[in-house]
Amino acid sequence: MPRSRQDPSRQERARLRREEIIAVAAEMFARGGYRGTSLADIAARAGISEPGLLHHFGSKAGLLLAVIERRDLDSEMFAMELLGMEPTGRLRALPEFARRNKDRVGLAKLFTVLVAESLEPGAPGHQHFVDRYRAMRAIVADSIRSAQAAGLTRADIDPAAKAAEIIATLDGLQTQWLLDPDMIDIVAGVESYARTLEHDLTCGLP
Amino acid sequence: MPRSRQDPSRQERARLRREEIIAVAAEMFARGGYRGTSLADIAARAGISEPGLLHHFGSKAGLLLAVIERRDLDSEMFAMELLGMEPTGRLRALPEFARRNKDRVGLAKLFTVLVAESLEPGAPGHQHFVDRYRAMRAIVADSIRSAQAAGLTRADIDPAAKAAEIIATLDGLQTQWLLDPDMIDIVAGVESYARTLEHDLTCGLP
Repeated sequence: MPRSRQDPSRQERARLRREEIIAVAAEMFARGGYRGTSLADIAARAGISEPGLLHHFGSKAGLLLAVIERRDLDSEMFAMELLGMEPTGRLRALPEFARRNKDRVGLAKLFTVLVAESLEPGAPGHQHFVDRYRAMRAIVADSIRSAQAAGLTRADIDPAAKAAEIIATLDGLQTQWLLDPDMIDIVAGVESYARTLEHDLTCGLP
Repeated sequence: MPRSRQDPSRQERARLRREEIIAVAAEMFARGGYRGTSLADIAARAGISEPGLLHHFGSKAGLLLAVIERRDLDSEMFAMELLGMEPTGRLRALPEFARRNKDRVGLAKLFTVLVAESLEPGAPGHQHFVDRYRAMRAIVADSIRSAQAAGLTRADIDPAAKAAEIIATLDGLQTQWLLDPDMIDIVAGVESYARTLEHDLTCGLP
């Protein structure tokens, strides 16, 4: 009897193969950028033909979106954890986030490179990153609003502006660390910023 | 008599031609990245042969460094202006910096893209950006130290950590603005951050 398309072991093998290719592409995009890495290079490194690669992902842009999706799973899980915490717990969780990223320098690099390659409206990852930043700012702004309502944060802070600022600082520290890890310790930098933020949000509270 | 190599009008024409090519390359790197732009594309757009381009810049990396140098002239002039100001004046000058960058979105994009493409130690712009960030952090840290010595800034702030944080926030806000200019107004964002910073540096001063 020929294998059915529903054969679970075959499906599972295809899924694993897909995950392998995504991991190879993520590593190559992190080092050489999306633009600087060809489908042929990825296919060769993953030990698959270029048509085989296109069969799995449709196009180079399709592969990029699969890589981004994979990477986002991690940070979304962290965002959900954050949302379950008290506001002060959230501040304390920031260095933990940095600690996780430090262990995954490739993923951090991938994110920094892909955002920069997605600034132009026509870039394949553009809408994804626009949406992602809007969602992240909304989550952080809501968190600030709750803390203000509970009297834990200064009322004269604009939640939307502060949310953009917090995300900006964490992104920017990450870039300096990736560029110059001998000079910038990302965990110490984020710990220091968590103290800044606590002072910022509370100093002058009645 | 044949033209001498010292002929000033010929030298001037070569200089202008060089500047034109740098401007074309800067625009193309900002849109397509260094990695995503070929020397052949730049030569075609600049109306010069590829050997002619190499005659001026030696290599693609040489052209990149010329583009970076050109871009840095602007920000160095601004840094020197900042250094001439009183600490409180420096804070107030930040939104002015954002206003200038807003008018030069191409340059801002170029910087964001090139830094991300220079994270790897082997990248042609790597050492330049490592040195540049170290120099910027040193300038900002010195400025914080002076303000602390004058009693204008909290003494319990670590100047080096705060310098990295300030530069990180400005870089990160710029990235969010470049990605999503409909949602993020860079001038309002930096104005808001200048207020954050003033509160951060002074709230709790005796």
